[in-house]
Amino acid sequence: MSKNLKTTLSFKDKAVDIHRDGPTVMIGERINPTGRKVVLAALQEGNFDLVREDAIKQVEAGATVLDVNAGVPGADEVALLSQVMQEVMSVVDVPLCIDTANPKALEAALKLYDGKALINSVNGEEKSLESVLPLAKEHGAAVIGLCMNDDGIPATPELRLKVAANIIERAGKYGVPVEDVVIDPLAMTMGADHTAGLTTLKTIELIVAEFGVNITMGASNVSFGMPDRKYINAAYMAVAIQAGLTCPITNPLVTEISTAVLATDLSLGRDEFGMNWIKAFRKRKKNQ
Amino acid sequence: MSKNLKTTLSFKDKAVDIHRDGPTVMIGERINPTGRKVVLAALQEGNFDLVREDAIKQVEAGATVLDVNAGVPGADEVALLSQVMQEVMSVVDVPLCIDTANPKALEAALKLYDGKALINSVNGEEKSLESVLPLAKEHGAAVIGLCMNDDGIPATPELRLKVAANIIERAGKYGVPVEDVVIDPLAMTMGADHTAGLTTLKTIELIVAEFGVNITMGASNVSFGMPDRKYINAAYMAVAIQAGLTCPITNPLVTEISTAVLATDLSLGRDEFGMNWIKAFRKRKKNQ
Repeated sequence: MSKNLKTTLSFKDKAVDIHRDGPTVMIGERINPTGRKVVLAALQEGNFDLVREDAIKQVEAGATVLDVNAGVPGADEVALLSQVMQEVMSVVDVPLCIDTANPKALEAALKLYDGKALINSVNGEEKSLESVLPLAKEHGAAVIGLCMNDDGIPATPELRLKVAANIIERAGKYGVPVEDVVIDPLAMTMGADHTAGLTTLKTIELIVAEFGVNITMGASNVSFGMPDRKYINAAYMAVAIQAGLTCPITNPLVTEISTAVLATDLSLGRDEFGMNWIKAFRKRKKNQ
Repeated sequence: MSKNLKTTLSFKDKAVDIHRDGPTVMIGERINPTGRKVVLAALQEGNFDLVREDAIKQVEAGATVLDVNAGVPGADEVALLSQVMQEVMSVVDVPLCIDTANPKALEAALKLYDGKALINSVNGEEKSLESVLPLAKEHGAAVIGLCMNDDGIPATPELRLKVAANIIERAGKYGVPVEDVVIDPLAMTMGADHTAGLTTLKTIELIVAEFGVNITMGASNVSFGMPDRKYINAAYMAVAIQAGLTCPITNPLVTEISTAVLATDLSLGRDEFGMNWIKAFRKRKKNQ
């Protein structure tokens, strides 16, 4: 099996390839009310100005896919997620990562989406697999598989690899090809366990060596509870990309993060003539 | 052969261990008139205030070894290098990396040094090997071996490995053990060739897999000629440490650099309970 599978997402006629030979794909994380009170309040009021602004700003800052989450407590997520997606699609034309734990909201979102979306997410639990994978197959979507199951998040890289292997196998049975499964190895905070980051890096290396699939991650979790998180996140981004991370879910508006991604691509020979680095530098200068 | 040799440097009763299980050792680069006009002018005037200040500041910022270079055009390097070392040793008690291409200056420096120094450097040329290695043996010093020879810097990782292998073999014949040879894979600028950084990373991986020796590097060369160099240097530092770099020669006063080193150690599980990260954070706060 190839060690470097390619996942192609699309929105209308725009395609984004994710693979280890090309530049790292930043999935913008900001359209998400979880932990962002101002977004939560705006969505509760039915005000989508901030959503549109977050969409535009993240794409300008280098995100080539946007995560869209509309998990507002008490709200009708089926209607709200569709609405938020419509707002995003009215201002940018990048593929979306549909972020919901609600199968009905997911189904409605996939129906209105024109292209190949990324579903965030399925995990190793039977209930999750059998509700999400048929939808992925039906709508031709790619899917993020989290390395956790009914027993929680396994402690060792080897056990997380097993969960990933199970998700990939079950996806295949539902007709979702391995290149459309993007694995999230899960990053726990190093504030609680200083080996947590290393465990995740080893998990990435094992999964890439075994399946060659693309890897995503909410790469800022590792620094939770630590001071000066942006520097930790920047270094962790670099080593995770080197280990095999290809499409982090992250905040491209943080200079330390977006530069870490671009500089790591450059360091790994994935930025021909350094043009992406130089273009991004010029944009930063202009916006200063 | 072990994949993780330990190099122990010392100054008087203070020892510094360099190996891949422990924290990365920052070798402070600033006591060097090359490219620093203000240092050059001060040394030409016989003013050592700046040297002492650079020594103190770098150690405060986390350097545990200091590089000392006194290459002033037209000056008597034998006398000047010894003088600069005396000034440094009068204010800090860390091991020194003696940085000179002049065998007489090196010999004088090694004679006055009390401990196990690091010699910067030998290369694969016969003339270099036979003038430097006997001094390393005689004074019990460790030595940096540059991956270059009469033909220049080899283009491929495999050819640089050959140069490293030759230096290690010749060192052995002169009685300098393999764990006292620290290899510099040499980093060319990505501004001229966008694969230059990757070539160096692969060189590190090959040399570490083959010999398990420690690896040093002037890690800022990779970004020469590119904009926003500090961000490139930070990301490159992270991926190089992950590849096997253990003792970069660098400027610990640049926050992006020192945090990249510390955050990478943390990410790789080499900072127990994150205490080094937290201590350095508190120091940065205090100095703000």
